[in-house]
Amino acid sequence: MRRHTLVSAAGAIAFGTFAFVAAAIAQDDRLPSWNDGANKQAIIDFVTAVTTEGGPDFVAVDDRIATFDNDGTLWSEQPMYVQLAFALDEVKAMAPDHPEWKDTEPFKSVLAGDIAGIAASGKDGLEKVLAVTHTGMTTDQFTDTVTAWIATAKNAKTGKLNTEMIFEPMVEVINYLKANDFDVYIVSGGGIEFMRPWTEKTYGIAPGNVVGSSIKLKYEVTDNGPVLMREAEIDFVDDGPGKPVGIQKFIGKRPIAAFGNSDGDYQMLQWTTTGPGKRLGMIVHHDDAAREFAYDRESHFGKLDKAMDDAPKAGWHLISMKDDWKQIFPGN
Amino acid sequence: MRRHTLVSAAGAIAFGTFAFVAAAIAQDDRLPSWNDGANKQAIIDFVTAVTTEGGPDFVAVDDRIATFDNDGTLWSEQPMYVQLAFALDEVKAMAPDHPEWKDTEPFKSVLAGDIAGIAASGKDGLEKVLAVTHTGMTTDQFTDTVTAWIATAKNAKTGKLNTEMIFEPMVEVINYLKANDFDVYIVSGGGIEFMRPWTEKTYGIAPGNVVGSSIKLKYEVTDNGPVLMREAEIDFVDDGPGKPVGIQKFIGKRPIAAFGNSDGDYQMLQWTTTGPGKRLGMIVHHDDAAREFAYDRESHFGKLDKAMDDAPKAGWHLISMKDDWKQIFPGN
Repeated sequence: MRRHTLVSAAGAIAFGTFAFVAAAIAQDDRLPSWNDGANKQAIIDFVTAVTTEGGPDFVAVDDRIATFDNDGTLWSEQPMYVQLAFALDEVKAMAPDHPEWKDTEPFKSVLAGDIAGIAASGKDGLEKVLAVTHTGMTTDQFTDTVTAWIATAKNAKTGKLNTEMIFEPMVEVINYLKANDFDVYIVSGGGIEFMRPWTEKTYGIAPGNVVGSSIKLKYEVTDNGPVLMREAEIDFVDDGPGKPVGIQKFIGKRPIAAFGNSDGDYQMLQWTTTGPGKRLGMIVHHDDAAREFAYDRESHFGKLDKAMDDAPKAGWHLISMKDDWKQIFPGN
Repeated sequence: MRRHTLVSAAGAIAFGTFAFVAAAIAQDDRLPSWNDGANKQAIIDFVTAVTTEGGPDFVAVDDRIATFDNDGTLWSEQPMYVQLAFALDEVKAMAPDHPEWKDTEPFKSVLAGDIAGIAASGKDGLEKVLAVTHTGMTTDQFTDTVTAWIATAKNAKTGKLNTEMIFEPMVEVINYLKANDFDVYIVSGGGIEFMRPWTEKTYGIAPGNVVGSSIKLKYEVTDNGPVLMREAEIDFVDDGPGKPVGIQKFIGKRPIAAFGNSDGDYQMLQWTTTGPGKRLGMIVHHDDAAREFAYDRESHFGKLDKAMDDAPKAGWHLISMKDDWKQIFPGN
């Protein structure tokens, strides 16, 4: 959490005027990709309530914490998680140095593009793929690999860059919250080091505000100076009940707003919305096969079942991509 | 890392004037508790270099990360770590509910105030004390306990509140860095949840900017809603080679300035100062028995040995509390 002391000091003087102007335009302009309706209004009402000084729901700036899941909440997760696509691509890129993979599962199936074969290799197979593609290198090397890959990697179904398949309406929510002095975090089941290289450029969320799953790191001093090696051991799984744990570990405060799209976000939504005071919980429902994808209870990626059942009782807003979003991806 | 978009927008307009004024007063007024000399100058020169746009050492705002150890660097760690004093006090507070402790080590020694007996119980004994005082409760309960304790807990030697024994010159460095758009973190071997309840009020460092050792948390849904339970298992030790790991885990960027006082800070200083570009590494040397404490190579708490030996070669500045600091604690 960066504190712009000097800027804030200067800002405080100009703030009186600008706060008024900003408040006046906020309700009209902050969420242009959202259709008017209950969900857009719920966001505006929430932000207005917690930022109205002297109001019953006012929340101090320091406690305005909002968390967003990533896969399926901020960008598309079909036909497979982007990080899984990265791992499969990396296996292919590394294959020339591993001739034995031609006859060894799960690599054989990965190289043949045999999704059923990969699936048949199960959790063990996936762990082998993750081990060779995500560990055994330094953090800097991994960052470089991810940065190079994400620059050109395209969605297998649409042919668009993954970073073009971010949800413009959600980026607008992030910016709207930040404009109202929220501290905005990504809290994802994805790898923390897989996300950090591009979240700032893509969503305006700095590396220090990314919470995710991690593998163990080891500090080593080499002839070329110190490095952090990525070890072949899981450190933390930031999914399901791990999300409130990750939030406490990394943020140290309970969010007042949370956004997810799957059952993996259930506990984050629950932890956020059962706290005292005004809270906001929202679920992106993928119901737009024409413009993105349509899936929920039966999906291998981003399964939404229990959270959808419990949403009405819990007061979580179900966002319909089809009805609530004027536009899904950036650009026109 | 909080982004004050709206404030920044307003601030940008007033900024031109204020930046000039601020820059003009910065060099004279930012470090009033420091005596003029090489160390004060090193801090000013470093900050000036990395913030001078167009200069050879300029560092973008997003990469201005500074890390501070806590015990012995930001506040006194003698005659024992504050967190250890907390644990011993908690054992005493809990003793009425545990009559068996009168005859069980290490609790017997703790209740008798027998420091030698506690020491004789070794690592096992310490772990038992930490287990009963730091685990088996919710995060909220632990926060409440720490908050109540720190409000009145006094240093055993001086009788002053622990929070009055913070080092004013170091707080000035924190504020000076923040005024120059640094993102400032505590990176301590101490417990992350022990520090977070009071670091914002004491140092102006928010919970999300505190990195420390942690125990495992578990998300549980009770009849009174969800809680995070503190489990009796170590999650992460943020000390020595753990500090660069903690920095990567929590911050995701390599610092350009680091401040420590003991061999436990060696790797943090090394990781920080061996990076490319202009870097600053500083070590607080406790050499002022009259105003604080004097100790280094032989101390049980905050042992400073190898880092002191290697400081000249590594370019780490040794801060003499006696010579460099006009004033040590806040107030007069």
